[in-house]
Amino acid sequence: MLKITFLPDKKTIRIHEGTKILQALKKAGIQIDTPCKGEGTCGKCKILIKKGIPMATFTEQDLLSEVEIKQGFRLACQTKLITDMVIEIPQEIRLDFEKIYSSNLKGDIGRVNHDFILKSNLKKVFLTLKKPSLTDQQPDWERIKEALFLKDSDIIPLLKTNIETLKKFPDIIREADYNITVTICDNELIDIEKDDTTKKCYGVAFDIGTTTVVGYLVDLENGKELSVVAKTNPQVIYGDDVISRIGFAQENEDGLKKLQKVIIHALNDIITETVKRAKINKDNIYKVSIAGNTCMHHLLLGLNPSFIASSPYVPAIKESLNLKAKDIPGFILQPNANVYVLPNISAFVGADISAGILATGMWDRKKTVLFVDLGTNGEIVLGVNKKLWACSTAAGPAFEGARISHGMRAAEGAIDCVKIDNNQLIYHTIKDGKVRGICGSGLIDLLAEMLNQGFVDKTGRLINQETCHSKISKEIRSRMFKDEKGGKFLLVKGKETENGNPIFLTQKDIREVQLAKAAIFAGIKILLKEANILLNDIDEILLAGAFGNFINKKSASRLGLIPHISLHKIKSVGNAAGRGAEMTLLSEEIKKIGQKITKEVVYIELSSRPDFQKEFIDAMFFNIPKDK
Amino acid sequence: MLKITFLPDKKTIRIHEGTKILQALKKAGIQIDTPCKGEGTCGKCKILIKKGIPMATFTEQDLLSEVEIKQGFRLACQTKLITDMVIEIPQEIRLDFEKIYSSNLKGDIGRVNHDFILKSNLKKVFLTLKKPSLTDQQPDWERIKEALFLKDSDIIPLLKTNIETLKKFPDIIREADYNITVTICDNELIDIEKDDTTKKCYGVAFDIGTTTVVGYLVDLENGKELSVVAKTNPQVIYGDDVISRIGFAQENEDGLKKLQKVIIHALNDIITETVKRAKINKDNIYKVSIAGNTCMHHLLLGLNPSFIASSPYVPAIKESLNLKAKDIPGFILQPNANVYVLPNISAFVGADISAGILATGMWDRKKTVLFVDLGTNGEIVLGVNKKLWACSTAAGPAFEGARISHGMRAAEGAIDCVKIDNNQLIYHTIKDGKVRGICGSGLIDLLAEMLNQGFVDKTGRLINQETCHSKISKEIRSRMFKDEKGGKFLLVKGKETENGNPIFLTQKDIREVQLAKAAIFAGIKILLKEANILLNDIDEILLAGAFGNFINKKSASRLGLIPHISLHKIKSVGNAAGRGAEMTLLSEEIKKIGQKITKEVVYIELSSRPDFQKEFIDAMFFNIPKDK
Repeated sequence: MLKITFLPDKKTIRIHEGTKILQALKKAGIQIDTPCKGEGTCGKCKILIKKGIPMATFTEQDLLSEVEIKQGFRLACQTKLITDMVIEIPQEIRLDFEKIYSSNLKGDIGRVNHDFILKSNLKKVFLTLKKPSLTDQQPDWERIKEALFLKDSDIIPLLKTNIETLKKFPDIIREADYNITVTICDNELIDIEKDDTTKKCYGVAFDIGTTTVVGYLVDLENGKELSVVAKTNPQVIYGDDVISRIGFAQENEDGLKKLQKVIIHALNDIITETVKRAKINKDNIYKVSIAGNTCMHHLLLGLNPSFIASSPYVPAIKESLNLKAKDIPGFILQPNANVYVLPNISAFVGADISAGILATGMWDRKKTVLFVDLGTNGEIVLGVNKKLWACSTAAGPAFEGARISHGMRAAEGAIDCVKIDNNQLIYHTIKDGKVRGICGSGLIDLLAEMLNQGFVDKTGRLINQETCHSKISKEIRSRMFKDEKGGKFLLVKGKETENGNPIFLTQKDIREVQLAKAAIFAGIKILLKEANILLNDIDEILLAGAFGNFINKKSASRLGLIPHISLHKIKSVGNAAGRGAEMTLLSEEIKKIGQKITKEVVYIELSSRPDFQKEFIDAMFFNIPKDK
Repeated sequence: MLKITFLPDKKTIRIHEGTKILQALKKAGIQIDTPCKGEGTCGKCKILIKKGIPMATFTEQDLLSEVEIKQGFRLACQTKLITDMVIEIPQEIRLDFEKIYSSNLKGDIGRVNHDFILKSNLKKVFLTLKKPSLTDQQPDWERIKEALFLKDSDIIPLLKTNIETLKKFPDIIREADYNITVTICDNELIDIEKDDTTKKCYGVAFDIGTTTVVGYLVDLENGKELSVVAKTNPQVIYGDDVISRIGFAQENEDGLKKLQKVIIHALNDIITETVKRAKINKDNIYKVSIAGNTCMHHLLLGLNPSFIASSPYVPAIKESLNLKAKDIPGFILQPNANVYVLPNISAFVGADISAGILATGMWDRKKTVLFVDLGTNGEIVLGVNKKLWACSTAAGPAFEGARISHGMRAAEGAIDCVKIDNNQLIYHTIKDGKVRGICGSGLIDLLAEMLNQGFVDKTGRLINQETCHSKISKEIRSRMFKDEKGGKFLLVKGKETENGNPIFLTQKDIREVQLAKAAIFAGIKILLKEANILLNDIDEILLAGAFGNFINKKSASRLGLIPHISLHKIKSVGNAAGRGAEMTLLSEEIKKIGQKITKEVVYIELSSRPDFQKEFIDAMFFNIPKDK
C-alpha cells in the first residue's frame, strides 16, 4: 500500500500501487473537474506532484508543456501511483466549492466565482479609556465614543448602542481597568469586553433547507471557515415538504410556534457544535446570515406562511431583514448579534436561490447560464448578460424518492448509481450499504441506461420480454415482468436487499419521473422564451443543491431533465446557498448586490402562463430536446 | 349668586355679587400673574369680558387703552362682579402652565414659554392596498410600501419594520380586506391595524421623581392632555432618597432588578389608569417620553447606579436614548412603542432638569434666569442670554421634613404655612387636617416670621425669654423654652395636635435649615460667579418641583434660600419636568433642542470647587444676601 498526501488539504490516504491519481482523489473525497471523463483528451485534470514525481506518459507529453512536466505537473487521469507521493490539487480544477472558498479567503480578497472584498459591517476595536476624575466626569458611553473617535474618526457619526450593552458598561469598564474591546456592527456598538479580544470575531452562515440545515462557522477577520455542521431539519416530523408543513401550521393552533421552535432549536444545536469543534466561545459570534426557501424563512421568523401556499402565492415579505438575535425567540446567541436574513425572490423562489445566484456570480456574467436547483420544487434561474429570470416549477417528490415504488431518500443503502454494460446491470449503494431502495440520482441513472438500452421507449413505455430487441440477454429479459399496470423491471433480487424483498422499477414509477422532469424542463423552456434565448445558446448549466451534486450529469441530460449540452459545461455547484450566505456574512458589497438582484430578477409565475401546459406535454417525451 | 364662566377653560363658578374677578379666578383654580399683587398699579391682569361688560374703573381707564376698553378688556384686580359674566383669560397672564399648555395645543402650534411646532416623529396613515393576483404577487410588506409611496412619497426612503409587526401583516391585511392603518415612528413601521384608526394616536409623558411618579396621557394629533395620574414611587420602600436606593442596589444581589421591577410596575399602573380615565385603548399608545433624575433613569433602565454615588460621580450614559417598549422588561405597551428617555446633564443633574429647562424656555431667553429645583439635592440652572450653567448641591433632607424634630413630608396634617401677626401665631395645615408636624414650606414660613419678629437672630440663634425684645407678648414669650441644646420654640400646643404632643422648633432644627439653605445659596453663588453675573442681574427666578410650587416665595427670599429680588420676578413653574417630557413627545424640534442644550450646558462640579466652602459658610447667616 502506498501513502498519498494531498495538498493543501493535508489529507493522506493509503491505496494500492498502480491506481490512477483520479481514483485516489475519489477515495480521498476530493472532487475535481474532468470534462473528458478521464479519457486523456482535455488535459484539464492537471495536478502538481511535489514528492515522488514519476515519468510523464505520452499523453501527458502531448497535453502539458515541457516546463510544466519539469515542474512536476501531471494529469490525474493518466498518472499511475508507483511510489508514495505528495500531490497538490490546484483550486481551479476543484469541484468542491466549499473548500475553494474557505481556502481562498485567507487574504483580504477572496475569489469564489466572483471576486469580492472581505469587508463586513462588523469591527472590533480595542480601547484604553481615559480614567474619569472630578474634572472629567464624562459618562461611560460618551467616554467610549470619545476614545473611538480618537482612534478612528470614521466610526463616530450616529453611533448608537442598545440597552443590553449599556447595562454592561459600568462594571466591565472598571473590572477591565479601562482597557476594553468594543464590537461595532453597522452604526451600533453591540458588545463590550474586558481586555483586547479583537482577534475573536466570528459569524455563522446558515442554509436552512426543507430537509437539511447546515451551519458554517467563519472567522470574520480572515474569512476562514472554521467548522461546518449539518443536521436534519427537525421540522420533518411535522411534514416532509413545504406544503405539508404549511398545512401543519394552519391546522394546529400552535403549529407555527412549534415549527419555529424546533428550527431555532436546530440552529442552536448547530452553533453549539460548530463552536465546540472550532474551540471558540459562542459569545464571540456577532453575526449570522440565513438563507432558506421562502417557507423556511417564514417558519423561522414566525410569519404565517398560509398565503404562500395558495394562489396568488403572496409572502409576507421578500426583502432582506436586518434583525438581532433577540428577535428570534430562544436563539442562543447574545441578544444584539446581527441576524441578516437574505432576501427572497417570490413565494417559491426563496433566499436559498438568492444566495445561490450570489455564490455562482451569474449576476455579473456575460454568458448565458442556467441555474437549476432540483427538488420537490425545481427552482430555475436563467442569466443572460447580467440580466436574470427565475421561476419555480412543481416537480413533485419523485427525485426525493417519494411516490416511487421502492424510492427512498439519498441515505445509506440507497442505489445512487446504475450502469448497464454488456447486458450486465451494475449498481452502487450509498455507503456501500445493503440495498434498501433507490434514490433520485439512481433513478435517473437507471432510466437513462434503460433508454440507452431500449428497455424503455421515448414515450416512457416499458418494453417487455416479447417486444424487446433480440440482442438483449436472457439475464436481462428475465428482469422484465408484465402486469396489468404496464409491467415492471427487476432492479435487485431479494437476496441482495436488506429486507429480502426484490426491488422493481414500475411503469408508474417511470411516469412519475416523466412528470417531474417535464415540469423542470418546461420551466426552463419558458424562461428561455422570456429571455429570447435558444437551448443552443446556453453556455453553462449549474446544478445546485445536494441532488444536483450527486446526479449523473450525462444521465440527467439524456433524460431531458436538463438541456443537452456538452457535459463539461454542466457543473455541480454544491451548496451554493450556504456559500452565498457566507459571502453576505463577509462582504457588505455582496449583501447589497443580493438586495439589488433580488429586486431586479424577473420572476415568471408559471401558473399564470397559458403556454406552460404545452411545453410540459412536449417535455414528457424522452427525446433529446432540440430547438425547433 | 352670579354665574361666571371662564374661557377657554369653559369653567363655570357661582360667586357672590361684588367679588373681584381676581378672587373669582382663585375660586375657579385659575392662576394668573399679578406682579403688583392686585394693587392696581401694573396693569398686567388684563382679561377680556365677553358677556356682561361693566363700566371701566378709573384705574382701568388709566392702565388700558380706549380701544381695549371698548373691546371689553378690564383688569381682574379692579373689576367687581355685578352680573353674570363670560370672561376670557388670555394665555399670556396665566401661571398654571399645565393648562396653558394643554389648552394651547389644539392647533398646530402651541405656546408654553416658547413656541414650538407640534410635529412629532409619529404618524398614522390609512391605506387601501391593491389586492394581489397572479400577475401582482408583491409580498405584503412591499405592497404596503408601495401604497405608502403613492400616498406620501416622503415616507418611503429607508422605511423599515420589525419582526413583531411583520408577524401581523398576513392576517390583519386579509381580515381588513386590504383596508389598513399603519403607524410609522421615525423610519419604522411599528404597527398595523384593521380599518381607519388614524384618529387614535396617543402618547404618555412620564416624570419619574424620587418620591412621586406622574404620567400625562396626550393626544398626539392635537397635543391635548387627556388625563394625568400621579403615584408614589414604589421604590420608597427600598430607600427614601437616591443614595439609599443606590445602597440597596449595591447591597442586595437582586437589588437593582427589584428597583427596576417596581418602577416599571408603577408606570404600568399609571398607564392603565390614564387610559381608563380617558377611555382609550392602551394599544393606541405609540410613544412614551421619560424624564427623571439620573438615578431614577438608571434604575428604570437597569443600569448599575453605583458609580453615580461615589466620586468622581460617573453615570453610564447621559445622552438621550431612543428605545422601544420591549427594551423595558415587563412594560405593558406594545413592544415597538417608542420610548424616548430624555438626556441627563450629569450624575446629579438629571433628565428632569433637562426637561425643566425645555419647559421654561430659558435656553432661548436673553434674560438672566435662575432655575432652582429644591429637594434633597438642589439642582440649580443659571441661564444668561441663551447660555446655561448647572450644578447640584446636597441640601440634605430638611426641606422634606427629615432630621427636623417634628418634620414631616407635605401630607395631610402638615403645617405648610405660618404667620406671626400682632403677637399672634397662626398656621395652616394641609387639607386642614389635625396637626401632625411641619413640612418644608411651613418650616421656611415659620423661620422667616421668627426672623422678622426677632425670635431668631441673623446667626440663627433662638432668642429666649430673657433676651427677647420687650414688645413681645406674654403669650409668645411663654412659647420660648431653654434647654441645654440651645432652646426650643413651641409651635403648637398638645391639645391641637393629632397625637396630643406639642410641636416644637428646636435650635438644632434651625441649624438643619441653615445647612440646607446655605448649600443651595452657595451653589447659586458659584454659578453666578462662573457666568460673571451679580445677584442684582437676576431677572427671574423659577422655582421647580412640588416644593417650589408650595413654598412662600417671600419667606424663601427672606431666609436667603434664594436671592432677594422683587417677588413678582419669582415664579413657581409647577411640574416643569412633566411639561418638558410632554413637549418632547409632541415635537421633534424640542427633542433635538433638548439633546443640544444638555450637551452645551456647563456643569459645575461643586465638590471640585475650593471656593464652595467659603460661599457655604457665608450663606449660613440669615442676612439678606447682597452683592459686595
